[in-house]
Amino acid sequence: MSTHVASATGSQALLSPRVVRSAVLPVIQQQISVLEPSLARICGYHLGFIDEHGDPSRGGDGKLTRASLMMAVADGVGLRPEDVQSQAAAVELLHNATLLHDDIADTDELRRSRPAAWKVFGASLAIHAGNALQILGLRIVVDDSGPGHKEIASSFTEAIGLVHAGQARELTLQPGSDAGIAAYEQMVKEKASALLECSLGTPAMRAGKPEHVLAALRGAGRHLGIALQISNDVEDIWGDPAVTGKPIRGDIERRNLTFPVLVALSADSPAGDRLSRLWHADSVTAEHLQALADLIDEAGGRHTAQRLSRSHLDSAVEHLGRAGLSPTATAELTTLFDRIVNRAA
Amino acid sequence: MSTHVASATGSQALLSPRVVRSAVLPVIQQQISVLEPSLARICGYHLGFIDEHGDPSRGGDGKLTRASLMMAVADGVGLRPEDVQSQAAAVELLHNATLLHDDIADTDELRRSRPAAWKVFGASLAIHAGNALQILGLRIVVDDSGPGHKEIASSFTEAIGLVHAGQARELTLQPGSDAGIAAYEQMVKEKASALLECSLGTPAMRAGKPEHVLAALRGAGRHLGIALQISNDVEDIWGDPAVTGKPIRGDIERRNLTFPVLVALSADSPAGDRLSRLWHADSVTAEHLQALADLIDEAGGRHTAQRLSRSHLDSAVEHLGRAGLSPTATAELTTLFDRIVNRAA
Repeated sequence: MSTHVASATGSQALLSPRVVRSAVLPVIQQQISVLEPSLARICGYHLGFIDEHGDPSRGGDGKLTRASLMMAVADGVGLRPEDVQSQAAAVELLHNATLLHDDIADTDELRRSRPAAWKVFGASLAIHAGNALQILGLRIVVDDSGPGHKEIASSFTEAIGLVHAGQARELTLQPGSDAGIAAYEQMVKEKASALLECSLGTPAMRAGKPEHVLAALRGAGRHLGIALQISNDVEDIWGDPAVTGKPIRGDIERRNLTFPVLVALSADSPAGDRLSRLWHADSVTAEHLQALADLIDEAGGRHTAQRLSRSHLDSAVEHLGRAGLSPTATAELTTLFDRIVNRAA
Repeated sequence: MSTHVASATGSQALLSPRVVRSAVLPVIQQQISVLEPSLARICGYHLGFIDEHGDPSRGGDGKLTRASLMMAVADGVGLRPEDVQSQAAAVELLHNATLLHDDIADTDELRRSRPAAWKVFGASLAIHAGNALQILGLRIVVDDSGPGHKEIASSFTEAIGLVHAGQARELTLQPGSDAGIAAYEQMVKEKASALLECSLGTPAMRAGKPEHVLAALRGAGRHLGIALQISNDVEDIWGDPAVTGKPIRGDIERRNLTFPVLVALSADSPAGDRLSRLWHADSVTAEHLQALADLIDEAGGRHTAQRLSRSHLDSAVEHLGRAGLSPTATAELTTLFDRIVNRAA
């Protein structure tokens, strides 16, 4: 991955995952280390620093997507990496807090190809661990005194509140053509876009950039989040578990109303009608899930989802272009946006 | 209750629950009302504004202990109620967030004489609702711009982080004489004292009082929390469910290592030895729980707990005296401290 970015920009790429990791992971590890011991252990496991026995581990520590975005924008507005280093750690702590709680709420048993934290340590401690991660992230921005700190702290707390709203909205989605799809879009703007908007916007606030720059960056984050979530929905049904780190078709096994499903259920076609009947059957056999996947595809769910994801990715790049970042940073971020949405490519 | 306070102070008591309620509840209700609808409903239920069907309700909305303390101290340092009104709402939102999550983590089925929120709405949505309450509380202090706002926001985030640590530590307590009791004390300082310290300290920060005033008030909160928690532990075993709003002996049914139990288990006496043997039996019959309660009493757990709770209440009042608040406020707070710890009296 680092080779790819370096060749795309022709420079010592700021986006190099190695650079981001070496800036952010020590901050996160230091934060975790002062937690109450059982919380430190669960959070360390969830973040991939240790395995379930407490031994050092190098797997499972995510892609630091949000930290990478923040640090690339920082470069594009003339900041040094250390100007947003702790905020980049904070957004990753918050993102991971939401994953830890969401896995409990959704009874998802795998995260990044390893057993989810609640499966290893129990749901009770995992609830407190998710809270601990959330507060670690918020304490960084609340205790910060750098330029724009008040606006940044406010945007972080607003964003994490929106993620909780989106997580709840996702649990209460109902099928039913337009209303269902509208609720889905609202849910995604909260659950997937909010922290991305925050990641892209933070360096602009730190650098004291004018409102239109912040608005352009936040707009990019909003569209990037929608593109990413719809792409994840497609990956759940037709993706490669080795890439997603999750069992295939977990969403349709649980009958989650993801975007391709909502599109297909509202399709006025024989495949859509057949899907509506089979969707409510209890079966979770591989054959039944395959039949559902085929009907979703046939009713247009896959095609419409892929097209809409691409369209939101294009909009994200378009908004990014309006932010007036340095050409190098714009190019790096464009590459990064594409890699985030099309990670399997 | 309001009559009691009014007669104790001989004035239009600031501590009157009615006054505190009318200052704080509208702020909380307004905050809740803008949440995602399913979260608004769960939080509204948990806070006692509505019943499980969504109809208006007047039961189950707690005692606003932390808001009452904050507003009484505010009066004592020369602030108006509106100077800390939103912070008083914030501390109640945070406290309730911890209760909502703790009920899930502990599978407690009753809260304030009503089914716990997770029993009514399911654990998944209740996890997100607890997060939503937590963020509502933190947003109030993060977005505030009044005097001392940065120090106040920092103390709130620190305090809620300590509560999570204490909740986790409680789940991992081990019996075993001194080590067990030391871990218990650490747990209580985090779980019970942190938000009380924050409640008592906030008005001093807002009023720009010197460090020794803040230290005295925080010290009062620390001892008050320990006195309250030990008193709650005693109430669980020998209290009146009509007062506690919880089934009696829930803690010993789940074999939680509360203070009287830790004391009794480490007693070098026949009753202590007998308790150690019976404690690990699976039985949860009323007879068995009664036998455990009698042995805890016989081994000195009840007496030691009551004595220690009283001693910490005395220390809380002593620290309060050093804060140099107005005599009226000091008298009101002394009455309030006593009522908080000895609510059944």
